[in-house]
Amino acid sequence: MHFGSDNTSGVAPEILEALARANAGYVPSYGADALTERVEERLADLFETTLSVFLVGTGTAANSLGLAAIVRSHEAIFCHEASHIYWDECGAPEFFCGGAKLMPVAGELGKLQPDALRHALSFIRPGFHHQAQPAALSLSQLTEFGTAYRPAEIATLSAVARERGMAVHMDGARFSNAVVSTGASPAELTWKSGVDVLSFGASKNGAMGVEAVIVFDPDLVGDLPSLRKRSGQLFSKGRFLAAQMDAYLEGDLWRRHAIHANAMAGQLEEGLRDIPGVEISYPVEGNEVFCVLPDELDRRLKEAGAVYHPWHAPGDTMPGDKVRFVTSFATRPEDVDTLLEIARN
Amino acid sequence: MHFGSDNTSGVAPEILEALARANAGYVPSYGADALTERVEERLADLFETTLSVFLVGTGTAANSLGLAAIVRSHEAIFCHEASHIYWDECGAPEFFCGGAKLMPVAGELGKLQPDALRHALSFIRPGFHHQAQPAALSLSQLTEFGTAYRPAEIATLSAVARERGMAVHMDGARFSNAVVSTGASPAELTWKSGVDVLSFGASKNGAMGVEAVIVFDPDLVGDLPSLRKRSGQLFSKGRFLAAQMDAYLEGDLWRRHAIHANAMAGQLEEGLRDIPGVEISYPVEGNEVFCVLPDELDRRLKEAGAVYHPWHAPGDTMPGDKVRFVTSFATRPEDVDTLLEIARN
Amino acid sequence: MHFGSDNTSGVAPEILEALARANAGYVPSYGADALTERVEERLADLFETTLSVFLVGTGTAANSLGLAAIVRSHEAIFCHEASHIYWDECGAPEFFCGGAKLMPVAGELGKLQPDALRHALSFIRPGFHHQAQPAALSLSQLTEFGTAYRPAEIATLSAVARERGMAVHMDGARFSNAVVSTGASPAELTWKSGVDVLSFGASKNGAMGVEAVIVFDPDLVGDLPSLRKRSGQLFSKGRFLAAQMDAYLEGDLWRRHAIHANAMAGQLEEGLRDIPGVEISYPVEGNEVFCVLPDELDRRLKEAGAVYHPWHAPGDTMPGDKVRFVTSFATRPEDVDTLLEIARN
Amino acid sequence: MHFGSDNTSGVAPEILEALARANAGYVPSYGADALTERVEERLADLFETTLSVFLVGTGTAANSLGLAAIVRSHEAIFCHEASHIYWDECGAPEFFCGGAKLMPVAGELGKLQPDALRHALSFIRPGFHHQAQPAALSLSQLTEFGTAYRPAEIATLSAVARERGMAVHMDGARFSNAVVSTGASPAELTWKSGVDVLSFGASKNGAMGVEAVIVFDPDLVGDLPSLRKRSGQLFSKGRFLAAQMDAYLEGDLWRRHAIHANAMAGQLEEGLRDIPGVEISYPVEGNEVFCVLPDELDRRLKEAGAVYHPWHAPGDTMPGDKVRFVTSFATRPEDVDTLLEIARN
Repeated sequence: MHFGSDNTSGVAPEILEALARANAGYVPSYGADALTERVEERLADLFETTLSVFLVGTGTAANSLGLAAIVRSHEAIFCHEASHIYWDECGAPEFFCGGAKLMPVAGELGKLQPDALRHALSFIRPGFHHQAQPAALSLSQLTEFGTAYRPAEIATLSAVARERGMAVHMDGARFSNAVVSTGASPAELTWKSGVDVLSFGASKNGAMGVEAVIVFDPDLVGDLPSLRKRSGQLFSKGRFLAAQMDAYLEGDLWRRHAIHANAMAGQLEEGLRDIPGVEISYPVEGNEVFCVLPDELDRRLKEAGAVYHPWHAPGDTMPGDKVRFVTSFATRPEDVDTLLEIARN
Repeated sequence: MHFGSDNTSGVAPEILEALARANAGYVPSYGADALTERVEERLADLFETTLSVFLVGTGTAANSLGLAAIVRSHEAIFCHEASHIYWDECGAPEFFCGGAKLMPVAGELGKLQPDALRHALSFIRPGFHHQAQPAALSLSQLTEFGTAYRPAEIATLSAVARERGMAVHMDGARFSNAVVSTGASPAELTWKSGVDVLSFGASKNGAMGVEAVIVFDPDLVGDLPSLRKRSGQLFSKGRFLAAQMDAYLEGDLWRRHAIHANAMAGQLEEGLRDIPGVEISYPVEGNEVFCVLPDELDRRLKEAGAVYHPWHAPGDTMPGDKVRFVTSFATRPEDVDTLLEIARN
Repeated sequence: MHFGSDNTSGVAPEILEALARANAGYVPSYGADALTERVEERLADLFETTLSVFLVGTGTAANSLGLAAIVRSHEAIFCHEASHIYWDECGAPEFFCGGAKLMPVAGELGKLQPDALRHALSFIRPGFHHQAQPAALSLSQLTEFGTAYRPAEIATLSAVARERGMAVHMDGARFSNAVVSTGASPAELTWKSGVDVLSFGASKNGAMGVEAVIVFDPDLVGDLPSLRKRSGQLFSKGRFLAAQMDAYLEGDLWRRHAIHANAMAGQLEEGLRDIPGVEISYPVEGNEVFCVLPDELDRRLKEAGAVYHPWHAPGDTMPGDKVRFVTSFATRPEDVDTLLEIARN
Repeated sequence: MHFGSDNTSGVAPEILEALARANAGYVPSYGADALTERVEERLADLFETTLSVFLVGTGTAANSLGLAAIVRSHEAIFCHEASHIYWDECGAPEFFCGGAKLMPVAGELGKLQPDALRHALSFIRPGFHHQAQPAALSLSQLTEFGTAYRPAEIATLSAVARERGMAVHMDGARFSNAVVSTGASPAELTWKSGVDVLSFGASKNGAMGVEAVIVFDPDLVGDLPSLRKRSGQLFSKGRFLAAQMDAYLEGDLWRRHAIHANAMAGQLEEGLRDIPGVEISYPVEGNEVFCVLPDELDRRLKEAGAVYHPWHAPGDTMPGDKVRFVTSFATRPEDVDTLLEIARN
């Protein structure tokens, strides 16, 4: 009964096999291999547009490099006040961007609202050199509250960003879950709605350790090749990052994983709703269920070996002390059932 | 009728004369001169303790270097959501601190409140390497709303900071005005209340261009000598920074200037209160008056040549569009009177 | 006939199998797993001392983080003028160290000499804040010229560093090859000779993508946990870095690989020596052979499909345009024989 | 008898008077004043071209900001191996440029030679992302050896830089002395010879503390306004920087000072040449005399109160332990005579 995070599970067998397959013979290092090229083609197909891809090893690096492509050291990045890049990267975006500012903005259920964003921006006078000028808007998909932005929401926020000359970044650590939950296409959730740079996450959804920085506008690639090398994210045996991503894209494995993980979260939510004293805190729009558990139930689940963690986020307006359950490609229906059975007793 | 800022006025004659006096002969460069030494002694007397002094040319540099003494690149600085270091330094503190984060916290009238600070800190787990750990609390004295922290308020906030192992920095661009307005001693407003590093401002209060980074705890001096050089703030002819500060301290010139500037603000506030339609927005505890002016009055004052600017600050809960009047050592009572006369017609 | 680099080969089967084995079940993420712990124990055994280990994904990151542990932003790192960290990391050490300086020093055959190091250091006055003070000496093992430092050489250079209060870093991308070639123990080549921090390379010697930053002095660990996270090198599914390193250490796989790679280089060198017109440029003390090839021979080898690259290094005092052949764990004796046969015709 | 440095002397009376004159009334802060505008016009006249000017407080800041305008964090700056920006700024250029590399190149008498520069550049493959690409060439005028580049020398070096797409920076801390000594015009020594950005020094030549970053190509101004603010170099009472520079330019005060300082150095050199045992080390082409003094003479001069310092520079190929004498606008002929008289006894 492991619901602690989507990164405590292992790797999908398809991806492990791809690593073994990629091991044959000598191939050029540092991403000059054929698999890396194929990944770029697959992603261009998936997103229905030309794009540039930079594979890296961690989500921290993907977000930080993506932001570094569009933000200079003396500029500002606007993000939700609970966002992962603001709280949980130990200042990595600031580091990769040479000391740029992250400026948090409040918003219900983990989502930025256009008016709040516009209000925050109103405190920065355009062209005024005393202030870090806004250069990027960063959206988390899923949000930290497990909710998903719809294309129209993204488009509206992007439009506010455009008014101020900002580029739009998306932290897509759980992008796949949002695609499945919203029913929108990858293109609709990104460049068709104004997103310029996407961290396309794979590690949380069945890969071993690979994320793609996807740049939709070729003019924004800028110094990324140098910045990736300089930040220690250009892997010598690059074929093994590519092999993971290739298998992840092959036959829409990413989507099948997300469908499963979201379904597991749905099954869990449904079951928990019926249990007296449990309060589901936010809409379940991906693979995360946030809820308030009665103390006695919490104790009972823990004693039975269930793994999940307390949740405490800035800007949370819902009552109660919350916990978070995360499902993944590896979650089995029977694990959910077992947990719910224990909970029901 | 110049009320736009306290840095549009010139330099006090005592300070100009000191520059001329300091010009005699050859003296060692880079701060190894006797005047610099005397400044250190004068500041030690004024603050009633041993301390280390680093003279620099601007307030931006003073704040940023002071923070760099106590914050490492992967750490966080907590400050008020309207603070100057957060909005108006073009990311200088982040730059000097190697990419550290500034984390804004809300609070009435420009002041941080202990509970809000504690709440903000609650989102960072001590020792958790995924999060930028809190390293410094920065307080603005005066605040951006023209209010002044009392020693007890500072002590309470410092205690919250200490609980988390944070050092306390004070942006004292208008420290002199706060000393005068609170009636507390420089010592009471700083190290006796837990402040570790102070930017002791002089430029806004009659100097030409000098500020002192004062470090009360010798263990916190750390790399400051190198950081000052490396940031281009070690002046070759250091005697001329020292001469300014020396004259500023001589005979409590700083205090006399602040008494005057505060009195001018008081005279202005008193007069404005009596004018129909004018709303004084925040308590006047220094040399700044914030208020709402009727449109017609605003137009009339501007036409008469009065200089002052609109004011728009994050977290402002008072109604109305505000303007800010700033007085200084150079403000003449007759300037205030003239303005009030025009306003009364 | 692939002699272009030791990173165009794939992964050792033992390491691939270890990845599959590590895939079972749920384990804590971010390096809190049992395999990571076992790696630390194995490395402590191998190096015959207590030590701290930080696994990362690339050699660039390992070197840069290792240096960041011992160098502050305003300090200097001394290294050989041809060193990889100076020329081939796109400024990564400077980036991770917050802008520290790399200061190159000349030396025959890729090795620093104590006198040259002392001379270079003589231009920096101890404690003089106008100069970036020396904080680290970085040695490459193997050097860029394929030579290996002996323990006594390292000890002598470390002693010069100690005189100036500098710590000693070793870029051990090809550390295994040096262990085999010198016959010295890992301990003798590192902490027993004064090395404080080692990048223990695995990727070039049969792993997929893992390197260990090893800190011998616990007082030097400092901010490394935060710096690793902040630089995007804390992998969520850390078990897969650990699994690689664990298999690399199991049964001395690292040593067996290096013995093989060095032997292949020796076989290649021996064969090339007998070919008219070929000049071996530097002593072969690892898995690299540098030589001057007659133009005709060069053309013939290339046409036959041999892969190797031109070599052009600062401070090279040997005559002629050179090429570099690199062998690896994957080089087969018959590949060397084939190349030599073609060369002999 | 003060020959220790050109920054131990005070300020020219014309400049002190200008400060007093500038003190009248209220003027806009942060460089939006009329004096700053006039300085820009004066400099455009002097350099016979349109240009952008950024006044700052120190030479460290001027050089570092000038370089930051033309170099990105992952790029490299080539400079002479003895240059001030390499040895004596505590890493300030690296800091302002976000961690860029300074790459030293050897050259006789403090001057870079085209072939040596080309050779150093040959180790960086154009467009190769593993290497910090060359972005700027920085020349010191005067050099650290007191010699002056002629326009043709600058033009030749600039041409090498242009071949690699590099911009050209000039550290003109003693630019005035070079103008006087070469007889070339400011334009000929800068943009007409390929210089893009100049630190136009004033502090060493009679000002209190002001330097101008001059950008000749408007396309290179880039982020300088933000970078200046962010580095704490935008002075609130900017009129007092402008007043210094204005007086420095008025009636060619800068040139008169340099003529005098150079003449004093010439008088000193001439006298020293005749003294047995004294060896003048390098051509005297400005306000510095480097020489070897017999021990006995050195002792005698020191006892008589003469101030000057030992000199020890990388790449010095002339024999003997040297000392440096520096003259300035304030040096009196009788000081030189007194020193020579003592020396002659």
